[in-house]
Amino acid sequence: MITTVLDPAGARPMYLQLYRFIRSEIESGRLPSHEKLPSRRKLAAHLKVSLATVGTAYAQLAAEGYVRAEPKRGYYVQPFAAHAFAGGRPAPPAASRKRRDPSKRPEFDFQTNVVDTNLFPYAIWARLARKTLSEGGEELLNAADPQGDPALRGEIARYLHDFRGINAHPEQVVVGAGSEYLLGLLIQILGRRKIYAMEDPGYPKNRRIYMGNDAEIIPVPLDGQGLSDSELRKTEAEIVHITPSHQFPLGMVMPVSRRISLLQWAREREGRYVLEDDYDSEFRFVGRPIPALQGLDPEKVIYTNSFTRSLAPSLRISYLVLPASLLEIYREKYLFYSCPVPNFEQNTLFRFMSQGYFESHLNRMRNAYKERRDQLVAAVMNSRLGGSVDVIGSDAGLHLLFRVNNGMNEKQLVSSAGAAGVRVYGAGEFSAGRAVNCPESTVVIGYSGFPAQNIAPAVERLERAWTG
Amino acid sequence: MITTVLDPAGARPMYLQLYRFIRSEIESGRLPSHEKLPSRRKLAAHLKVSLATVGTAYAQLAAEGYVRAEPKRGYYVQPFAAHAFAGGRPAPPAASRKRRDPSKRPEFDFQTNVVDTNLFPYAIWARLARKTLSEGGEELLNAADPQGDPALRGEIARYLHDFRGINAHPEQVVVGAGSEYLLGLLIQILGRRKIYAMEDPGYPKNRRIYMGNDAEIIPVPLDGQGLSDSELRKTEAEIVHITPSHQFPLGMVMPVSRRISLLQWAREREGRYVLEDDYDSEFRFVGRPIPALQGLDPEKVIYTNSFTRSLAPSLRISYLVLPASLLEIYREKYLFYSCPVPNFEQNTLFRFMSQGYFESHLNRMRNAYKERRDQLVAAVMNSRLGGSVDVIGSDAGLHLLFRVNNGMNEKQLVSSAGAAGVRVYGAGEFSAGRAVNCPESTVVIGYSGFPAQNIAPAVERLERAWTG
Repeated sequence: MITTVLDPAGARPMYLQLYRFIRSEIESGRLPSHEKLPSRRKLAAHLKVSLATVGTAYAQLAAEGYVRAEPKRGYYVQPFAAHAFAGGRPAPPAASRKRRDPSKRPEFDFQTNVVDTNLFPYAIWARLARKTLSEGGEELLNAADPQGDPALRGEIARYLHDFRGINAHPEQVVVGAGSEYLLGLLIQILGRRKIYAMEDPGYPKNRRIYMGNDAEIIPVPLDGQGLSDSELRKTEAEIVHITPSHQFPLGMVMPVSRRISLLQWAREREGRYVLEDDYDSEFRFVGRPIPALQGLDPEKVIYTNSFTRSLAPSLRISYLVLPASLLEIYREKYLFYSCPVPNFEQNTLFRFMSQGYFESHLNRMRNAYKERRDQLVAAVMNSRLGGSVDVIGSDAGLHLLFRVNNGMNEKQLVSSAGAAGVRVYGAGEFSAGRAVNCPESTVVIGYSGFPAQNIAPAVERLERAWTG
Repeated sequence: MITTVLDPAGARPMYLQLYRFIRSEIESGRLPSHEKLPSRRKLAAHLKVSLATVGTAYAQLAAEGYVRAEPKRGYYVQPFAAHAFAGGRPAPPAASRKRRDPSKRPEFDFQTNVVDTNLFPYAIWARLARKTLSEGGEELLNAADPQGDPALRGEIARYLHDFRGINAHPEQVVVGAGSEYLLGLLIQILGRRKIYAMEDPGYPKNRRIYMGNDAEIIPVPLDGQGLSDSELRKTEAEIVHITPSHQFPLGMVMPVSRRISLLQWAREREGRYVLEDDYDSEFRFVGRPIPALQGLDPEKVIYTNSFTRSLAPSLRISYLVLPASLLEIYREKYLFYSCPVPNFEQNTLFRFMSQGYFESHLNRMRNAYKERRDQLVAAVMNSRLGGSVDVIGSDAGLHLLFRVNNGMNEKQLVSSAGAAGVRVYGAGEFSAGRAVNCPESTVVIGYSGFPAQNIAPAVERLERAWTG
């Protein structure tokens, strides 16, 4: 059924609002070609508008060639080329046809970049957002502080202090629209001619951002503790980008001794920094929290984290904590960049944090994800796979790895699971190509966006695929 | 008075919410050192909470050194260094002390980068935002289409078609968090090794973005029609970035003949493009609208515009229209970048546009700004300055220029106005240094954020400063 918001008090007549909505649904492909529109009577009842409103909108769409009327049967969406011509609109450029076909999605997908939005406290957030709207007014409209709302930065500094052992003044916090944006900004601050070391295997998006910014990156192999400091020392790198709380993709938590070795490396020369991507630090399921590296040496560590996984991907709020030396460069040269996060989101997030909701939300998320992890691990261990699967990297974070000892290599594991309708990801897929220490026969399993009720059937499929 | 939102149903007790709020006000400097806090009784009455809630919050702040209690007088904010020490929080890094001193602001400021947020239809926007909140739910949380919400892109394409004569398919539209973000993305798509030509004088922020991205820029002088095509031909530039609807800062509207010459230049070689920054096109006060260049050659023109000036600076929504060739590169290499604009804003803006409010809002804005422009010009012409000032570039856009024929040069005009409490901007300040054709004795006057009631007193000051 077509659902939209028609506003009787709107500046345009209702039928025109409805016409424009359906037109945009057709143009965006959300109403596919040859789809039958709901009958006028049904749609009028559904939207609580008059029959004439729907009738006029449909007639207009038919006149412009967006839909065709079939006598006694109803209205059908015209294939795009046809109505593009009729309506005088250009055809979509060739490139647009390359997008992936949604019908090819696997039945079960253990992808790593999604979260369970059902866990988001929508009612509380919406209530705070309404308060922001009714109290904000003028203040929400003017350009914000380019570094981000000072009150929000204060809350972030406090959270980092209380939960991550970080001593950051709110002045050191820079708020941005997602980690990708902030990494781009950071490359400008540090300089594109610096040499950056990355974990190999590592997070492929970051590699692409460095490449998109023409910065030189050196992939550095991991050992059992994370990025190897002795391998790092063989390179000319000046900045090392790590995910110590939960390495992506191999899932290890970097021990304190290794953290100190990397700091040591950074201290040996001016201009060297550790970029601590504290991704997944909110989700530690075992033992005591390990404080961030930043707390050990605020001058040598650039800290970054985001609310993408702890709140919701669509909020697009991340932050940097800059050492004083880099803060100075940022303030001198890059303060002209406006803060890309709308005041509205910043203000609502400030309320959410300052009223204590963020902490309780994190606790709830941690418990929920731990339960899902336990279910997944139990399902595998209680299946016929139990004897041949080692679970790796499950102490923290929202993904884990299966090392499968059934004689198959990584490629065979991925393709046989895929043939059974389950998408898993080979650890080697995340390597830049030099991953000599990448574990064999190991697949990456993201479970944060995986519905609990699908765990049993998906494991059953894997069982069939991997035990033959 | 201290005003915040205390939530009796919040996860933290009320006093803690109040304590944290005041602490963050102090840390961010919004409650300055030595400021007296409101009495407990007054604040309790104002916030409608118990005396004990305020008392406990104040006591906690005093215990941590954020405020000091003076017997019989009340509570005072401690200077920062003191409470930073007492509370165990780090001192702000040295760089933070460089920020500009708000007490040095001029009384009247004709700056160009602000808009009158009083004109924003806040009630309508808030109503649509509430609907987005109550209807969106799940959909607002998941990551959006990396190019931006298809429905919003459809509305943008329609607006561009109806008002700017642009034939763009919604698939060609890329939504981003402000023009700065999108220019950074575009430099990645086009390539950092390309040579970019910019108007000189021109918009200084764009110059800094190109420089921040290590792209080579060539400043090209203007003549009376805008960027000179014959000067452009003397360079090796491959992309030319122009503001044809209202050149910044010189204010001319580029005539069609010059637009065609620039297109001709682009057509002569593969890889050449015109970047049409259609800044201020919404505000044309005289004559018929001039369609965008993009409509003349969608393959050679990259079009960009934003809602910063037409709606509000804090919304951070801008867009690109990419030619098919560049769309293909974007889709192949950069689609991994998430859309940095939250779904919430995109959805609310879609409602605002599809229900016809954007059009009526633009009409209202255009009339209001035209009226303000007329007031300003009349005030100058009716003053003693009338005989010696030429008004330039006032046919469109939200700023104009005064050429002052009183024997003073640009520097003298700016400094004498400044001494009289009025900040105006020399046209030469926007030059990259080669501006041989920059008009002499000319100042830039932004009036879009200038309150109407200040026009008369500000012009009086200018009269005194410039007629001696």
